Amino acid sequence: MHLSLGCLSKPILHGYFRSSCSWRVRIAFALKGIEYDQAPVNLIKDGGLQRTQQYKALNPMQQVPALEIDGITLCQSLAVIQYIDETRPGPLLLPADPKKRAQVRMISDLIASGIQPLQSLYVIQKIGAEKVQWAQHFIDRGFQALEAILKQTAGKYCVGDEISMADICLVPQVYNAERFKVDVEQYPTIKRLNQTLTEIEAFKLSHPSCQPDTPPDLRA
Amino acid sequence: MHLSLGCLSKPILHGYFRSSCSWRVRIAFALKGIEYDQAPVNLIKDGGLQRTQQYKALNPMQQVPALEIDGITLCQSLAVIQYIDETRPGPLLLPADPKKRAQVRMISDLIASGIQPLQSLYVIQKIGAEKVQWAQHFIDRGFQALEAILKQTAGKYCVGDEISMADICLVPQVYNAERFKVDVEQYPTIKRLNQTLTEIEAFKLSHPSCQPDTPPDLRA
Repeated sequence: MHLSLGCLSKPILHGYFRSSCSWRVRIAFALKGIEYDQAPVNLIKDGGLQRTQQYKALNPMQQVPALEIDGITLCQSLAVIQYIDETRPGPLLLPADPKKRAQVRMISDLIASGIQPLQSLYVIQKIGAEKVQWAQHFIDRGFQALEAILKQTAGKYCVGDEISMADICLVPQVYNAERFKVDVEQYPTIKRLNQTLTEIEAFKLSHPSCQPDTPPDLRA
Repeated sequence: MHLSLGCLSKPILHGYFRSSCSWRVRIAFALKGIEYDQAPVNLIKDGGLQRTQQYKALNPMQQVPALEIDGITLCQSLAVIQYIDETRPGPLLLPADPKKRAQVRMISDLIASGIQPLQSLYVIQKIGAEKVQWAQHFIDRGFQALEAILKQTAGKYCVGDEISMADICLVPQVYNAERFKVDVEQYPTIKRLNQTLTEIEAFKLSHPSCQPDTPPDLRA
């Protein structure tokens, strides 16, 4: 009975409105048309509520997101997105063709391993005064590579003409770049893809400006 | 004809003996029993041969590994490993069960996004004098979380009793931790799994101490 209830209940996403990794998961849910509950974790208040013992039990890395789903707790946004894709109906977030899947994962990992961690809150906090230059350096470094790759892989979206996990990673990373005042005009393919994607309902609904924990002054 | 030849020729791995991300791919090839050629890229010589125009064309991120396979070039080690797993016979590197697959990806991403990038060569070079303390801080931070997760997921290996991509990520990260003098004794599950895994032929054959580009004084 417990397992059945676990499978029937809505997934619970522990996230933060402004976290790009939380936003990735919100986009995936929206694209799949899956209902879920949000349990906001304020990363700033009282030194960060992700550091509480209660939250550490959900995600020992003390990061968002963490997802309670099907009776287990999953962390790491790309693992979460691929789990959703493999267990839920709706549009495929990874294409069926192995080469295209590999390209989607390559672009997703370039962002999720090669850019985002280096400008994440816990790294920036350790860098101190030079934090904006540090973040700009690593975002620019990553975007130069990403632009070169996307020139080869992109159609309407990051890989061909189907929305994928790569697009889910791209938009929140461009949002971070803009927060750190990176000049996105230098990257015409990234800019064009971001413009196309941000017009799509699933990306709008999941935007940091309209989440349950978005502060009133940052609401769209 | 060109495509057929591309598929029949051996994959070419552009890597570096000591790079943990290159080692991940070498382990995957060894576990699958796939022959490949190595094209070493010296990350130190002349400021790093990954910065050449020739190499940038293969991997715009100027990192190793890059893999030429089936007529395409793939970068990002986890994308490469999953491509190999999805297109080649041999033992599965990701389990068939979706929950276990998700746990394998969660552990792999914790290492590949949450630890390795923060102690990678290009970040360490930017940190300067404090580089050892910086690397130790982020490896310890990651290992504390990893230890807590592995206590729940591990059997003989990282997830249950089958070798997976999580194990492929673990061993090179422990090797990095030891290079930075992190005390692995603090993490009994990580230590136990690493000991078990390093006895396995595929992990031995792919070790940094016995690659074509391993300098004579570092050979086992």
